[in-house]
Amino acid sequence: MASASPKPMRLQVEEYISSLQEDIVTAFEKLDPAAPAFKRDSWLRAQGGRGLSCVFAVPPSSNPESASSAQTVLEKAGVNISVVHGVLPPAAVKQMRADHSSMNDLQGSLPFFAAGISLVIHPRNPHAPTVHANYRYFEITEPVEEGAGAARETGQAKVVAWWFGGGSDLTPSYLYEEDARHFHGTLKAACDPSGAAVYPAFKQWCDEYFYIKHRDESRGIGGIFFDDMCDEPHARFAPAGTDTQRPRTQDDIFAMLRRLGDAFVPSYIPILERRIRTPSDDRARRWQLLRRGRYVEFNLVYDRGTRFGLLTPGARIESILMSLPETARWEYMSDLGTDGDASEEGKLIEVLKRPRDWV
Amino acid sequence: MASASPKPMRLQVEEYISSLQEDIVTAFEKLDPAAPAFKRDSWLRAQGGRGLSCVFAVPPSSNPESASSAQTVLEKAGVNISVVHGVLPPAAVKQMRADHSSMNDLQGSLPFFAAGISLVIHPRNPHAPTVHANYRYFEITEPVEEGAGAARETGQAKVVAWWFGGGSDLTPSYLYEEDARHFHGTLKAACDPSGAAVYPAFKQWCDEYFYIKHRDESRGIGGIFFDDMCDEPHARFAPAGTDTQRPRTQDDIFAMLRRLGDAFVPSYIPILERRIRTPSDDRARRWQLLRRGRYVEFNLVYDRGTRFGLLTPGARIESILMSLPETARWEYMSDLGTDGDASEEGKLIEVLKRPRDWV
Repeated sequence: MASASPKPMRLQVEEYISSLQEDIVTAFEKLDPAAPAFKRDSWLRAQGGRGLSCVFAVPPSSNPESASSAQTVLEKAGVNISVVHGVLPPAAVKQMRADHSSMNDLQGSLPFFAAGISLVIHPRNPHAPTVHANYRYFEITEPVEEGAGAARETGQAKVVAWWFGGGSDLTPSYLYEEDARHFHGTLKAACDPSGAAVYPAFKQWCDEYFYIKHRDESRGIGGIFFDDMCDEPHARFAPAGTDTQRPRTQDDIFAMLRRLGDAFVPSYIPILERRIRTPSDDRARRWQLLRRGRYVEFNLVYDRGTRFGLLTPGARIESILMSLPETARWEYMSDLGTDGDASEEGKLIEVLKRPRDWV
Repeated sequence: MASASPKPMRLQVEEYISSLQEDIVTAFEKLDPAAPAFKRDSWLRAQGGRGLSCVFAVPPSSNPESASSAQTVLEKAGVNISVVHGVLPPAAVKQMRADHSSMNDLQGSLPFFAAGISLVIHPRNPHAPTVHANYRYFEITEPVEEGAGAARETGQAKVVAWWFGGGSDLTPSYLYEEDARHFHGTLKAACDPSGAAVYPAFKQWCDEYFYIKHRDESRGIGGIFFDDMCDEPHARFAPAGTDTQRPRTQDDIFAMLRRLGDAFVPSYIPILERRIRTPSDDRARRWQLLRRGRYVEFNLVYDRGTRFGLLTPGARIESILMSLPETARWEYMSDLGTDGDASEEGKLIEVLKRPRDWV
């Protein structure tokens, strides 16, 4: 009778994101051995679950505004994982149903499990782009009776809905087409084994998501974004034939997610290495800080994860707002970065207003 | 037959806020004659209306992060007026009805008129507080036929609902009880002639409104806030007897609004004069920038005016986001400002977590 049951997906995801987090943090620490190490901060969630935040910051003992004297490659960075479970109240179930077709027949309070890795890297040099990535797995299980917690802990409760989501996108202050092509090309190569429709769909989805509506511009030069990927038909792959050009089984989607996660370091570190010694001046720093202001605007006004987190009682605010830059700047009617002007700042704005294909 | 009709309220308000704007800008310019003058920027709204933005900023020709070398009293400031009219679509009417009892019987598309003054002052010295004030008048009129625009222009269309709103609040980085008492005391003195219930109701309303829920702290040390003040009963004055202790006629409410507007300069300028020469250090500047980060969080996540503006097609984004500071800072798990510690930063946090009565 005792057959070796396959390892539950929640455990596979948890193992993968833990190892990916360590790989990514190690890659940054190797790149800048003289800098302080990332601070590892593990936490427990009272309602169930745990996390590990790995955070980079330069201790602010000196003048907070003499950034130019600091020599580290990174200015502020966070690489977080969280593995949480609990019960979604009926209102949250109702809200999620709108985005997740696999929840169509579910209602009432439902047990959930969520595991994910989330990172934001703000380098110091204005010519080196900010990058963001997030990969996550979500599961909803059948309600279990009181005292049957063991079934949940071992992941043996019946899964009634599941999906993967994630993405990675680049936010430069100055446009280097070579960097944009490298970033998108690396992500495309990680998508392609899962089907020809994957990268084009995820690229467009990213352009639509990271859009600062009140500025009529994108947050950055895009990348990929996806959500609600499961074994049911998906609206993003509705055009005839494209649903066969994407992964459909749980194992296949997880394999794609691992390829994308593994692609993070090769998609970004070579760009960082190319730009960290680019000569910069006060104008470039000022422009970088103005762009960081736009990053703050997107994250606080539009980002679903951030806003959901801020409105969740008991959420860990320090982890949610870790994505914000160390410093940001706002000028009324700034003279930098007018759409269509011939400056380097204007060239960035042009591509933020009219997203391009990079591969 | 020709009786001199009284001047319509919309014109009275427009004249008042124009003259108040000039008085306020002049007061700041007198305080710091060596600084650049406010930039006067008048604009027209394509859909109807006009505005004048008066903005202070130091031209960012030098290093954006050597703020300590700049000698101006103010770092960034805006004093705006706007006088706009148009037609509220049914969805906006429905949304407004929730907040404005005088709109209870109104539906469909409705002509509106709105006039207001709005200001945010961010001084440079970390010991000098940021201040915000806003006073506005809103009117809804009967639909008029095409070609009868003259009735609207001269303010002769029948007014079916109107109200005043506004407030003023102080956001220090360091707590000076003397300043808090002066600010609240000046506002209370401007409220009191309109009834004994006014200041206590408006003070509490302010504490409730300027609250950063995800931080569990107030934005600042409060002041006053009110909305929907008209000649109908008001929920904020529901307790027995208090509705008789507040202004009820349009003229009386406008008189109160003028006293409050006139109180802005005496409520704030003496505080500024006391603090602009206070010695400061890198720690204080860092703390000020962290507090400015909180200001950004409140305005982008919660402030109704800002969020309404950002989501309004055709809104003037530069005027809406003029309230944001020049520079803001975010640190993960900052060591500054722990609630209950004995530092000057901790003393501020204590009062932000537990609002006090100041008069």
